[in-house]
Amino acid sequence: MTDANRRIVLAERPTTMVDERTTRLEEGPVPSPGPGQALVRVTHLSIDPTIRGWMGRDTYLPAIGIGEVVRCAGLGQVVESRREGVAVGDTVFGLLGWQDYAVVGDVNTVPPGVAPELALGLLGVTGLTAYFGLIDVGHLAEGDVVVVSGAAGATGSVAGQVAKILGAGEVVGIAGSDEKCAWLLDTAGFDHAVNYKTENVPKRLHDVCPDGIDLYWDNVGGDILDACLGQLAMHGRVVLCGAISQYATGAEPVGPANYLNLIGKRGRMEGFIVLDYADRFPEAQAKLFEWAVSGRIHTAEHVVDGLEHAPEALNMLFTGANLGKVIVRV
Amino acid sequence: MTDANRRIVLAERPTTMVDERTTRLEEGPVPSPGPGQALVRVTHLSIDPTIRGWMGRDTYLPAIGIGEVVRCAGLGQVVESRREGVAVGDTVFGLLGWQDYAVVGDVNTVPPGVAPELALGLLGVTGLTAYFGLIDVGHLAEGDVVVVSGAAGATGSVAGQVAKILGAGEVVGIAGSDEKCAWLLDTAGFDHAVNYKTENVPKRLHDVCPDGIDLYWDNVGGDILDACLGQLAMHGRVVLCGAISQYATGAEPVGPANYLNLIGKRGRMEGFIVLDYADRFPEAQAKLFEWAVSGRIHTAEHVVDGLEHAPEALNMLFTGANLGKVIVRV
Repeated sequence: MTDANRRIVLAERPTTMVDERTTRLEEGPVPSPGPGQALVRVTHLSIDPTIRGWMGRDTYLPAIGIGEVVRCAGLGQVVESRREGVAVGDTVFGLLGWQDYAVVGDVNTVPPGVAPELALGLLGVTGLTAYFGLIDVGHLAEGDVVVVSGAAGATGSVAGQVAKILGAGEVVGIAGSDEKCAWLLDTAGFDHAVNYKTENVPKRLHDVCPDGIDLYWDNVGGDILDACLGQLAMHGRVVLCGAISQYATGAEPVGPANYLNLIGKRGRMEGFIVLDYADRFPEAQAKLFEWAVSGRIHTAEHVVDGLEHAPEALNMLFTGANLGKVIVRV
Repeated sequence: MTDANRRIVLAERPTTMVDERTTRLEEGPVPSPGPGQALVRVTHLSIDPTIRGWMGRDTYLPAIGIGEVVRCAGLGQVVESRREGVAVGDTVFGLLGWQDYAVVGDVNTVPPGVAPELALGLLGVTGLTAYFGLIDVGHLAEGDVVVVSGAAGATGSVAGQVAKILGAGEVVGIAGSDEKCAWLLDTAGFDHAVNYKTENVPKRLHDVCPDGIDLYWDNVGGDILDACLGQLAMHGRVVLCGAISQYATGAEPVGPANYLNLIGKRGRMEGFIVLDYADRFPEAQAKLFEWAVSGRIHTAEHVVDGLEHAPEALNMLFTGANLGKVIVRV
């Protein structure tokens, strides 16, 4: 930490993965908070696939502008406050960006005693996404056969475990390595794990979900989405959380040919954005926290040290190098 | 009509359109009804895209077997009855098949005074599909911007008009000829019509639905589905009724790349089968009939004479030669 503010800005829109041309590390003065604002020293960054989306084009938020700090949720400590209700020393959560210091207005305070990994992962956007996606979008019902892709990632791992806690019959995780599959079975309590890099996914799904998939949680899109649509149960639901296989290919996304199965199966495919549930975050965080402290949910984190490594940390989500939540310790 | 029973059976599964190898006209004796059955002289056949599906493979019903009469809904008159509640002379509706005479068990009686065109079209499966798809699947709301593809077909034309009756803000029809577009605007009361063969569909949709599409009724799949997903409004709904552009290409169906827009728009894409609503058919038929006699719904029929022309009549649905419901007068 220095008296300068290091900032990673978007230099060029990426077409595939982020590389040395995409971002640029700059140094500038530490900004000053205006009236109603606070200055936050950024300590942890939540590395999420959506950042890659924001770099590329307008989505549910406007694209990050060229030359602007890369937008990113994170945690930090208040070092100067001109905002009522926010005190120096408070730990806060918000869209702090890839930088050492951020000036914020509206910001959420994190209670003391909540570890940064928990605040950013299970109780952060990724855990909340799992909670609301399963319940409000997927209408998870008791006995459901649930399949989760990207199952060893920050959201997928929580989605599978919450499904189990809420009464799913069987939970199947799809992930990209034997190590991840072992973690799903041995630590996270999934009933089945499928390594999509070494196994025939449609065949395994046919074997482990002979009566079809009631709820499919899609983090990946592409062939795996297609396979799950092909194995959908009557009145099956597909929760569209993301499509990490499609974001950084440099080509147009590919649609799922088996969407037609939604007709015969009276199925549904639905997308959502967790920010719409902001007024119910406390309800969800209370439950997720209770499940974590009672040992019913296990989380994993992949911590990368140093702000300058944020671009590589983002790429991990696309190469699948991480198990669990990717966090940059600034 | 002769004393022989002409039957068109499935000779070979089609890969693209139906041709002379697909079906075979046979003659056999007129069958006799067993106890609890009635013999029906078939008078009218309802030519629907789903028949092409049944010819190809198992869908929501088992595929038609090779050598079996082509399954098809139709109307007929009872000529012999061994079933209680069914009298000689009754007009009945059921899966009668491409043949002169059918033996039926459970069958629906059509009230006297309802014209065959109305019984098979607006009050038949195609009209009922429009009704339940809009209300129960699409959750049509007042003020909705509704887009219908296959809009000059039997289901699409009813869907657009029912949407308008139930309070849609704007109704846009997509069809394949200027004649059809003129009918949509001048007779069926659509607000806009797009000729997908001569116009740039994404551009027209952008122009006529600047705030996005709240409800898209998909009869066609392919590029038009993709264009509508690309123009979806926040919380937009896609009702999957069919995908006529994809059934008879001889290739695997193509999925919609813009399904990803369902995430940012919090959108939903859902399929259904109208047979699930059978116990509510009378409710829907009463409303549809009232709207027809009060001049609020206009229907069109394309009548083909002669059982032997049923295969060509089916192909019309794929070439778009028809305006409105295709009916074969046996």
